[in-house]
Amino acid sequence: SRSINLAVIPGDGIGQEVVAEGLKVLSAVLPQDVKLETQEYDFGAKRYHATGETLTDADLDSLKRHDAILLGAIGDPSVPSGVLERGFLLKLRFAFDHHVNLRPSKLLPGVATPLAGAPEIDFVVVREGTEGPYTGNGGTIRKGTEHEVATEVSVNTAFGVERVVRDAFARAQARPRKKLTLVHKNNVLTFAGHLWTNIFNKVAEEFPEVTTDYIHVDAATIYLVTDPGRFDVIVTDNLFGDIITDLAAAVSGGIGVAASGNINPSREFPSMFEPVHGSAPDIAGQGKADPTATVLSVALLLRHLGHDAEAARVEEAVTADLTDRQGKPARSTSEIGDALAVRVAG
Amino acid sequence: SRSINLAVIPGDGIGQEVVAEGLKVLSAVLPQDVKLETQEYDFGAKRYHATGETLTDADLDSLKRHDAILLGAIGDPSVPSGVLERGFLLKLRFAFDHHVNLRPSKLLPGVATPLAGAPEIDFVVVREGTEGPYTGNGGTIRKGTEHEVATEVSVNTAFGVERVVRDAFARAQARPRKKLTLVHKNNVLTFAGHLWTNIFNKVAEEFPEVTTDYIHVDAATIYLVTDPGRFDVIVTDNLFGDIITDLAAAVSGGIGVAASGNINPSREFPSMFEPVHGSAPDIAGQGKADPTATVLSVALLLRHLGHDAEAARVEEAVTADLTDRQGKPARSTSEIGDALAVRVAG
Ligand SMILES: CC(C)[C@H](C(=O)O)[C@@H](O)C(=O)O
Ligand SMILES: CC(C)[C@H](C(=O)O)[C@@H](O)C(=O)O
Repeated sequence: SRSINLAVIPGDGIGQEVVAEGLKVLSAVLPQDVKLETQEYDFGAKRYHATGETLTDADLDSLKRHDAILLGAIGDPSVPSGVLERGFLLKLRFAFDHHVNLRPSKLLPGVATPLAGAPEIDFVVVREGTEGPYTGNGGTIRKGTEHEVATEVSVNTAFGVERVVRDAFARAQARPRKKLTLVHKNNVLTFAGHLWTNIFNKVAEEFPEVTTDYIHVDAATIYLVTDPGRFDVIVTDNLFGDIITDLAAAVSGGIGVAASGNINPSREFPSMFEPVHGSAPDIAGQGKADPTATVLSVALLLRHLGHDAEAARVEEAVTADLTDRQGKPARSTSEIGDALAVRVAG
Repeated sequence: SRSINLAVIPGDGIGQEVVAEGLKVLSAVLPQDVKLETQEYDFGAKRYHATGETLTDADLDSLKRHDAILLGAIGDPSVPSGVLERGFLLKLRFAFDHHVNLRPSKLLPGVATPLAGAPEIDFVVVREGTEGPYTGNGGTIRKGTEHEVATEVSVNTAFGVERVVRDAFARAQARPRKKLTLVHKNNVLTFAGHLWTNIFNKVAEEFPEVTTDYIHVDAATIYLVTDPGRFDVIVTDNLFGDIITDLAAAVSGGIGVAASGNINPSREFPSMFEPVHGSAPDIAGQGKADPTATVLSVALLLRHLGHDAEAARVEEAVTADLTDRQGKPARSTSEIGDALAVRVAG
């Protein structure tokens, strides 16, 4: 489309800084005839403290009108754990039915990894985004007493599992290696595990070219550090996806470069793109944050909106920038953003 | 005590081979005046196929009479996923109230790690063993249809959380660094998360010398590969503990050396000691399995039964053996067991 109407949510801490650079690169890469309109929203700790609000129905109505959302990071130690996570981030993912949480991991040449021998890493995790243990189902009785019982209910539906599994198969089919791994814990969580496994096996029949395998989540963490090259596309539930994508980010260049998209493939609601990292209040406002993860999230955003050539240009710019870093002095957040903007423009 | 009445469960695959070496080392390390009696049980895939049984009430009655249990590994591809895990292993852990699942991680000098720079690693995970998402609560409706819903209920009680948290504090207190980290996901799983966090903070008051911190499980996987030295003792729930201890094993020498104890500190029921690895049917019967994890589990067993000096001798033997391995040809399962038996005896 020839215009992008973007909702921008800088959020807390380094969110402000990295989003500014993401927008800088986005403006630089877009052709002249694509009109970029942005509207900034003030969600996060400051608004919560001022008004008690995290995300209202009116906010959702307003956000709904955008083509996509760019999010920095939400979270601050001054807000009790869970308030902004459940009240803003998860509320938005659920309200806009972001059931495909896409998290690519690619270790670029020259980029530091904690793993010895710099293995080849190039896979994508398709994390379910609207079910599992993230539904908020559960509760507490006898709170604060010695008889307290707290439950968390993981809810898994055939509808919800099938659509994300099918999405993952389609992504695997489109990649050269055409391999899809289901990660779950079906030997212990047998109710949810059987649902996931049966649907995975059923949908596999529609994709005869895709090689499949299954790995328990605990074993998956072993492979992620001993043999990450074995993965091409991974599909998994919301909580397992949360855990293994942080590990995946750590081994493939760190959370400074890990991008994500919260995608609604039906386009009924706008999709949201955000770095995997948090608001990092300890380094906020110092120009120390690496905006690369946000810039790569902008690439996912561009691809989602059909600007494939521009998405590729952003990814190439990041690859070149990361490869060039070795042995050079550290740059500030905006210096990295400037360098990327120059690269994508030229 | 001057006698040990041990239940031995070799189980499936390499379980048979590694348990034989564990017993070899146990016999070699015990002083002459400690009488070792063993009784072997045939649980596992073979018995399941022959009788349909995994673990009967009569079995539990019989196992109950032992001082401790040594387990190899249970599991075979011929048995549907979940049958032996839920029907044997978890049934036993729950029946004998093994609420402290102890999993030490120590990277010994010279031992291979996938991490660059061979960082210092020496921590213990105290994994809750009788609650959380492992209870088997939950269910399925409309199974096999497009309207299937499957739930898994994580059950967390003040009673269950407090006893394992207190155990972890006591272990941290007894270690030189005196540091305890709670790993959970209290920003998303807020019901269970608040219970864990509140009890952790309350029990902390009884242990003023112990330094505490809190890390989300996703972030914990990052630290386990980028800064594992930051951990001393970790306490966490059943599922998070399952996941992070496989990762911990991977970074600290591999699952070939990862030991565990399923402990009932009240001694109302016998505790069970087992390697973290599985039955590895692909290499079973070939003498390729490393019995070190089982031998280190024997050390945990000895310490649990009050034979501290013997436990230390086993650990020293393993340290020496691992340090000596570099550049030498691979040895068979029984050759490693023999070498360890010689070391502990001498
Ligand atoms: C902040 C938190 C709610 C979130 C999650 O658990 O999904 C984050 O860890 C992520 O992975 O995006
Ligand atoms: C085999 C399986 C049931 C078990 C678990 O999940 O606890 C194993 O992974 C472990 O860690 O001991």
